[in-house]
Amino acid sequence: MVIDVDAGLVERLILELARHGAYGETGVWRTAYSPEWVAAQDQVAAWFGEAGLEARRDAVGNVWGTLAGSEGGPVIATGSHIDSQTPGGRYDGALGVIAGLVALRTLREQFGTPRRTLEAVSLCEEEASRFHATNFWGSRAIVGEIAPGEPDQIRDRDGMSIGEAMREVGLDPERIPEARRDDLDIFIELHIEQGPILEEERLPVGVVDAITSIRHYVIELRGRSDHAGARPMAGRLDPLAGFAEIATAVIGVALESGAPAVTTVGRVEVEPNLPSAVPDKVTFTLDSRHPDRQAVDAQHARQEQLMREIAGRRGLEISWTTPLDLPACPSDSSVVAALEQAATEQGIPYRRMHSGAGHDTQNIAKVAKTAMVFARSKDGRSHTPEELTSVEDAVAAIRVLTATLRQLAY
Amino acid sequence: MVIDVDAGLVERLILELARHGAYGETGVWRTAYSPEWVAAQDQVAAWFGEAGLEARRDAVGNVWGTLAGSEGGPVIATGSHIDSQTPGGRYDGALGVIAGLVALRTLREQFGTPRRTLEAVSLCEEEASRFHATNFWGSRAIVGEIAPGEPDQIRDRDGMSIGEAMREVGLDPERIPEARRDDLDIFIELHIEQGPILEEERLPVGVVDAITSIRHYVIELRGRSDHAGARPMAGRLDPLAGFAEIATAVIGVALESGAPAVTTVGRVEVEPNLPSAVPDKVTFTLDSRHPDRQAVDAQHARQEQLMREIAGRRGLEISWTTPLDLPACPSDSSVVAALEQAATEQGIPYRRMHSGAGHDTQNIAKVAKTAMVFARSKDGRSHTPEELTSVEDAVAAIRVLTATLRQLAY
Repeated sequence: MVIDVDAGLVERLILELARHGAYGETGVWRTAYSPEWVAAQDQVAAWFGEAGLEARRDAVGNVWGTLAGSEGGPVIATGSHIDSQTPGGRYDGALGVIAGLVALRTLREQFGTPRRTLEAVSLCEEEASRFHATNFWGSRAIVGEIAPGEPDQIRDRDGMSIGEAMREVGLDPERIPEARRDDLDIFIELHIEQGPILEEERLPVGVVDAITSIRHYVIELRGRSDHAGARPMAGRLDPLAGFAEIATAVIGVALESGAPAVTTVGRVEVEPNLPSAVPDKVTFTLDSRHPDRQAVDAQHARQEQLMREIAGRRGLEISWTTPLDLPACPSDSSVVAALEQAATEQGIPYRRMHSGAGHDTQNIAKVAKTAMVFARSKDGRSHTPEELTSVEDAVAAIRVLTATLRQLAY
Repeated sequence: MVIDVDAGLVERLILELARHGAYGETGVWRTAYSPEWVAAQDQVAAWFGEAGLEARRDAVGNVWGTLAGSEGGPVIATGSHIDSQTPGGRYDGALGVIAGLVALRTLREQFGTPRRTLEAVSLCEEEASRFHATNFWGSRAIVGEIAPGEPDQIRDRDGMSIGEAMREVGLDPERIPEARRDDLDIFIELHIEQGPILEEERLPVGVVDAITSIRHYVIELRGRSDHAGARPMAGRLDPLAGFAEIATAVIGVALESGAPAVTTVGRVEVEPNLPSAVPDKVTFTLDSRHPDRQAVDAQHARQEQLMREIAGRRGLEISWTTPLDLPACPSDSSVVAALEQAATEQGIPYRRMHSGAGHDTQNIAKVAKTAMVFARSKDGRSHTPEELTSVEDAVAAIRVLTATLRQLAY
């Protein structure tokens, strides 16, 4: 049965939601608990109501819209996050919020009351763009993984705690535990791909069978600062030269294993950072990802071995922390199968793929069966006002989501 | 004839001069035209007077002390700079100022009026530690190489121009051309080595036969920022990976040619410098030095070829500027011979060596015959409050300087 989704409605919702925190021509700057965020969540709640869903804001600020099923029971939910990068674009997160709204509205209009209860959700925070020490605030609240002290400890650049920011918008951080859900059976998130694979393969849609693991190392490499002219090469303990060799080696590990392994050195700080001084210390990050749980262990072990070996051979001290360490999150095979069946049924070309980025879904996977739908990203761009997903591709992805929900809930 | 230098006097002068701008236990923070600088130059002028020299401050703030010769004619001068790093130590520059004072005082006391005129000088600025866009302000004034617009253009971190800073201490930048000297025949600078070579060879003194060339490249390497997870390795244009290969290669050029070639990558700036983003741009410095004029041309050519080759192979854009490009400065062979003869005569072990750092001497070499004397640096340290030259080594170097001046001027 072909699901018809209103392309005009999708386009209008994308543009209207992007007004809240509009940045330049096509950008969005909408951080958690900001006035723009309040306006956007209020807008979503109003749209939920207009679509015939029962709208409510939970204790952490997620906005839910419920289409109650005739049989009740555990819930099938869909959605994504409402906050953006600084600046971000119109699609990252927002498209998944709109997709949930459009899917439930379409199902209600075309098929009436479902057998099982469906919910759409606009999650409050995912990007860590305002509160750098956290992310997944909305989905962590849903699975009960916000620690009691966090609302006071996590602060934005102006020093405001996330708890104070919540109070400013009428939310009581003491009540965060009330946002916990223990009645979710299935969660499906639609999101833009944020990468080039679908575009390169000329496919509008991806069915996500795993979210990659992500580990961030923060590495300190310490040598000895020396005068760039007066100290001969032979006696140097140059952490920059050591860093260069390490960066080449750890990136080389991902190049050698080939896709889907990726490794990025994205941040580097050099001290004292002077043209005429051999540095004293280089601090850098290593972002190492692989969607396969066994492969990633081998990847980390090889990279750590290389870092130790190179530093040791050069007489440099090395140490690291891993402030972010998310395991790979395989999708539920029955949900993946439902998505694939729906795509085939709707005649929409797709491929199975992993997600190279992290998503709220990997938190919700702790309490529900999950999978994701990707929509093609122009030029693979994301986290920028230039990110773009065509209305046609957005509609194709929403049709796959809607058809899947119909199959599961009716 | 053995020259006797008063070690107690040398030690006292080092400690007293270091009071002006004292920083912590052993450091000095004395930038050009600061109140500490004024006090230090006034102190030096007073010491010149007490030593029987005719003291005067020139139009740029250099302080000269003259011991007129019975025959007059072109001048034989010695000295170094009074300003420091931020913070620096007690010896860099200051020891050469004190050495000139002690040498002329000793000669006058022990040998009376010279045949040729001797001058000691405390140069106003060498380190570029306050006005980052310049250095060698004192010696450039002496050779007439300060451009008319510079006093207004060069500013410190607070936005004050070097011309305004001069006016604050009673100097008129319009009169800088009056500091030019066309009557210098010989200039000898005593300086701490700032490197480990004399210490490693257990020698108190070095006779400098050349000052290295110094070229600073500022290199921009531009790729394309991408999501660290969503963009596979294969399609990346990663300027950080390119930077790592380039840094290894250009440092490798100096390692392969061996001493005295040196190459340092000391400053790196990454944009956007985020753990989860392939960078867009890496800007870095390359400090490439060699004391031999032909060898350095080959070194630069090879390094430029490697940078272009690596960037090109990786699809990265590369461009650079060379904001600092000082040619190698060979010492005058007759002055070197006089220094070596004096060291031998005084029974002081020494070696000939090049200077890996830049010095005022390389400017004054444009109008006079020059050479330098190095005093051993503990642990090769410099540009830090921990820099140290023992009183014994300072006295040994001053004896070589004094004996040389005696030989040349009496």
